[in-house]
Amino acid sequence: MAEKLSMESKPSTEQDRLDELCVNTIRVLAMDAVEKAKSGHPGLPMGAAAMAYVLWTQFLRHNPSNPQWANRDRFVLSAGHGCMLLYALLHLTGYDLPLDELKRLRQWGSRTPGHPEHGLTPGVEATTGPLGQGFGNGVGMALGERYLAATFNRPGHAIVDHFTYAIVSDGDLMEGVASEAASLAGHLKLGKLVYLYDDNHITIEGDTSLAFTENVSQRFEAYGWHVQEIDGNDLNAVTQALATARAELDRPSFIRARTHIAHGSPNKQDTAGAHGSPLGAEEVRLTKEALGWPLEPAFHIPPDALHHFREAVKRGQAGQAQWQTRFDTYASAFPDLAKEWNDILQGKLPAGWEESLPAFSPQEASMATRQASGKVLNAIAPRLPALIGGSADLSPSTNTHLKDFEDSHLSTRGRNFHFGIREHGMGAILNGMALHGGIRPYGATFLVFSDYMRPSIRLAALTKLPVIYVFTHDSIGLGEDGPTHQPVEHLAALRVIPHLVVLRPADATETAAAWRIALEEWNRPVALILTRQKLPVLDRPASDDFVSRGAYVLADTGTKPLQVILIATGSEVSLALEGRKLLEANRIGTRVVSMPSWELFAEQPQSYREKVLPPAVKARLAIEAASPFGWRQHVGEEGDILGIDGFGASAPGPVVMEQYNFTAENVAARAEALLERRSPKTARKTKRKG
Amino acid sequence: MAEKLSMESKPSTEQDRLDELCVNTIRVLAMDAVEKAKSGHPGLPMGAAAMAYVLWTQFLRHNPSNPQWANRDRFVLSAGHGCMLLYALLHLTGYDLPLDELKRLRQWGSRTPGHPEHGLTPGVEATTGPLGQGFGNGVGMALGERYLAATFNRPGHAIVDHFTYAIVSDGDLMEGVASEAASLAGHLKLGKLVYLYDDNHITIEGDTSLAFTENVSQRFEAYGWHVQEIDGNDLNAVTQALATARAELDRPSFIRARTHIAHGSPNKQDTAGAHGSPLGAEEVRLTKEALGWPLEPAFHIPPDALHHFREAVKRGQAGQAQWQTRFDTYASAFPDLAKEWNDILQGKLPAGWEESLPAFSPQEASMATRQASGKVLNAIAPRLPALIGGSADLSPSTNTHLKDFEDSHLSTRGRNFHFGIREHGMGAILNGMALHGGIRPYGATFLVFSDYMRPSIRLAALTKLPVIYVFTHDSIGLGEDGPTHQPVEHLAALRVIPHLVVLRPADATETAAAWRIALEEWNRPVALILTRQKLPVLDRPASDDFVSRGAYVLADTGTKPLQVILIATGSEVSLALEGRKLLEANRIGTRVVSMPSWELFAEQPQSYREKVLPPAVKARLAIEAASPFGWRQHVGEEGDILGIDGFGASAPGPVVMEQYNFTAENVAARAEALLERRSPKTARKTKRKG
Repeated sequence: MAEKLSMESKPSTEQDRLDELCVNTIRVLAMDAVEKAKSGHPGLPMGAAAMAYVLWTQFLRHNPSNPQWANRDRFVLSAGHGCMLLYALLHLTGYDLPLDELKRLRQWGSRTPGHPEHGLTPGVEATTGPLGQGFGNGVGMALGERYLAATFNRPGHAIVDHFTYAIVSDGDLMEGVASEAASLAGHLKLGKLVYLYDDNHITIEGDTSLAFTENVSQRFEAYGWHVQEIDGNDLNAVTQALATARAELDRPSFIRARTHIAHGSPNKQDTAGAHGSPLGAEEVRLTKEALGWPLEPAFHIPPDALHHFREAVKRGQAGQAQWQTRFDTYASAFPDLAKEWNDILQGKLPAGWEESLPAFSPQEASMATRQASGKVLNAIAPRLPALIGGSADLSPSTNTHLKDFEDSHLSTRGRNFHFGIREHGMGAILNGMALHGGIRPYGATFLVFSDYMRPSIRLAALTKLPVIYVFTHDSIGLGEDGPTHQPVEHLAALRVIPHLVVLRPADATETAAAWRIALEEWNRPVALILTRQKLPVLDRPASDDFVSRGAYVLADTGTKPLQVILIATGSEVSLALEGRKLLEANRIGTRVVSMPSWELFAEQPQSYREKVLPPAVKARLAIEAASPFGWRQHVGEEGDILGIDGFGASAPGPVVMEQYNFTAENVAARAEALLERRSPKTARKTKRKG
Repeated sequence: MAEKLSMESKPSTEQDRLDELCVNTIRVLAMDAVEKAKSGHPGLPMGAAAMAYVLWTQFLRHNPSNPQWANRDRFVLSAGHGCMLLYALLHLTGYDLPLDELKRLRQWGSRTPGHPEHGLTPGVEATTGPLGQGFGNGVGMALGERYLAATFNRPGHAIVDHFTYAIVSDGDLMEGVASEAASLAGHLKLGKLVYLYDDNHITIEGDTSLAFTENVSQRFEAYGWHVQEIDGNDLNAVTQALATARAELDRPSFIRARTHIAHGSPNKQDTAGAHGSPLGAEEVRLTKEALGWPLEPAFHIPPDALHHFREAVKRGQAGQAQWQTRFDTYASAFPDLAKEWNDILQGKLPAGWEESLPAFSPQEASMATRQASGKVLNAIAPRLPALIGGSADLSPSTNTHLKDFEDSHLSTRGRNFHFGIREHGMGAILNGMALHGGIRPYGATFLVFSDYMRPSIRLAALTKLPVIYVFTHDSIGLGEDGPTHQPVEHLAALRVIPHLVVLRPADATETAAAWRIALEEWNRPVALILTRQKLPVLDRPASDDFVSRGAYVLADTGTKPLQVILIATGSEVSLALEGRKLLEANRIGTRVVSMPSWELFAEQPQSYREKVLPPAVKARLAIEAASPFGWRQHVGEEGDILGIDGFGASAPGPVVMEQYNFTAENVAARAEALLERRSPKTARKTKRKG
């Protein structure tokens, strides 16, 4: 392939000279920053600089002065290790990222961490690094754009109309999460999605031929993408390919661009050594010489190049201004829509939306919390146009279908997404929808399969994205499907993820409250953990905030002194209530604490926590059909935990629950054993304090 | 497409009649068993019965009398929800699975759980159900076969020579883990891998066109597979396709077989309703009528059909006997190899193998535990031919390359696998290698990316497979790569998986011991958690079993009474030792407990546990650069945990560690605060007891 910008080539015109200068500026900044940081990834930025330059200066509609402009094109660097490409572009095109920050690459407190972090650095649209995630995020952004456009645009008024671009690497394309998202993007015909594949033939272990010899282009054609193959260093070819991709509105576009890792480095280009290590002072020198670059100072930016890049500022301001004019006209014509649009973007829920939340009564028939969740979701959806989502081929089981709304593969206004049996792709897409803004996405699967999407959940938590997960079939209580489908360790595994709120409601009423909490959380993801099996709707003291406090006293001892506290979550709360009856019948003062969320409870003031779990009451039994891991913090050294060691088993749910000792009799017996274990003196003391 | 076996067709010959009878026997058994269980998946077994019948009666070399025969063909039902297909075949072909067990489908204590469980039911080669996993398992089995054949076969002596078959569903093919494994299988040209795709067009949410419209055949061609498309109910077409697939030894084979879910059911065939629910008594009746089947009794097996299926018993015994003759000849010619083969299959490590384990001395330079692990691995590999593995494109970082051995993509004897950036595929393939037998597989990636392969780890644990995971870069101490790459919650998330042993060695010596433990575990997976950063080689009392007991006293208070216990793992152990110095200098009697494995420690007798952590010593500080989640069980109510709340940050490792308060000074201060918090009286009491 022709290598127009390789060091041997001669610039033929002034524009060519300027282009080469600009591309090399990116290369040198990446090389110098990694060198100064003494760690990082110089190779990708140097190899992908040319195509990124074309994209950012000729195609990307963005406003460096306002990275929040709603109708900007989105750009995701899925290969996040190449962060210096992005930081260089952000600095050069005029974002609030001073050169000093590039000099502090990978240092404590800088805005230039080792992988791009959304929310930390202006203009970074997604936190990337774990491969394949950014690929899926882009699909989610394009879906967000498509839905909002279909929902808010009116004939002659295209207020939502932007593209989503990404640079993806061979690592992204090997990851299954990207395969899942790619198949879905093709299925949904996301014509405004354009991906550049940085095909540099190098991975950490060496040449991609070690492990990756499939026909990538053919695979993407099989997914239904429009595929082009180009020389990624041929600026004209990149320009032409991007123009063609933008014109192709019926299919997502995949541009396979042959590049060379560490392009321009005389000894390290095309080697694995340039992937994740500084080039070294000597090679940096040789590269600068080869590029005709001044050896000093480091971080040199030619004024011509900077001037050319910085045209993005004015172009961006003008672009947003034009859009604002269009929007104002739209707002005059459709004031209600415009207000709704503004609210949705700011994450405001419509006033009074919570009135649509259904109320459940203890007189109602038993219902699984997944059923209650389905009722809630369908009741609130009409009031919340931002709420869209679906399941990984389990909507009849997770009760997440919005009955009054269309399917997304049949209508761009469709709010029901059939993600297919692609939990991980779903997770990455949900993150992309949330990153886009204007969307409150939810995604559903069985709790046991939260494992499949765990890397995406982690990124939602790290990025503080308001994604809602609906995880049903939440314990061995699901029964016959057996241990492959029965979660045991998943509650603990989710609770340990920082910034993730896990809510396991005990009945329909708590489920409605949990949905309310989830929707009012704008700064972190929430996982709703729901049963397959039916549960009674519980009688409880009227209160607005029983679930939002994480734990509360659901039933207390009556006239008897408090001796035992039963702490339970979800389906085990009604079991605890049954156990309490037996204990109270044995004249043992028993409190039942429903604890739907450890995280919310931990955020309460100590006074509240001690009111619910008085420190003096040491006889505490936690009841949860899951691993006991972590419960010790709530029951204390002298407490006990009725949980599950090992895996589940296949049999009807009630049989499994009984075989695993989740019976009222066992609850009472374990609680009584706690009292017996304590010395009579202590026990009396407890009584007095209670 | 022709539907040779559809209910309207007329048998033209006696063989055709018998074939139809046999196929319908499978269908009816599946239908009746699910009906009796009142739950399950009748649709897949009914739809795939014809092709499974051809495979099992004409191609599969197996010995129902000895499901352990080493050279049997492997068969994986990746779509595990169709378990009744497998149970029916196992019963009919004469495995030790009586009809009564089929009648107890999905009941407590039966050998016919809701999804197939390896180890529970004879003839079940893999635990399946979580989709995509079985697909990857088959790839691992084929790799196991290929490696063992290359290693043990000699010209004229093919003692390892079998095929690996699977039936996979659209759900499997949508999952990213299968995409990853498929790409790798094509790359490695696994010619003895043959997959039948049960293309029945139906998922739980409805027609596959809801979410899955990609060109699957083209995708598999892109991966480098040999692809055929057939009518899955045309027995001749299935026969021909399987024969062609077996003859194609340069590429894995993908046979896309159009089938019809719930084939034969007049009203439920081709509907989503037949996927995961019983057909219902009336529809069962109608189906039996349509198939010309007696309505009573349920579970009717025509004697002709049973006789035909049961020919597998004699055929299998004869097949194994022939193989045994071949093996005996081989054993005469190559007695050493034959012994090695027998040992390897029984999971015996060669006598004296542990002598190859390197010893490390406190006089040596500091080294990361990943480096120590690399030294150990390379030292023991020549003695352990069963030990093969690799990494998900991180071998230079995880130190898992076996320097003296070839690459698997260059030689079938290669022991180094380049899994590519496909952690999940790697996990499923490792499971398949372990399931095959004769292999001790290991796989490596960064600890943070254990999330990507978590569903496979869970299945390894559930199936008690001796897979070894090498997870390096195990904390914020990895530094610059930042929070996307810094594990925080992963230690807890792995510890909570039942049957998984997590080992986080503190230095090179513990690393060697950890490898020894891992290799001697034949009944469960082990995860080794290793540092990126260098650590001193610690001085410690000589002992054989310090790591195998999970926790031990590494350094104790000298003449002073014991006041404080510092409990640490991995890189924080040397920090604890530094903290101890400060405390002892302050005249505070301090013990340091290294706790490389919670699981192994929990298995020790109480007396040992209390020796290490005397109950009377309440001032305990746990130190681990990870989430504190779960540590309360070791430090007690009055103890403290120096851990990490929230995520990490990008900066050089030592800076991050310091910013997160992992310093000797802080360790000492937190420990002293524990003593101060306790009343003087209590503190004195503790002193006395210590």
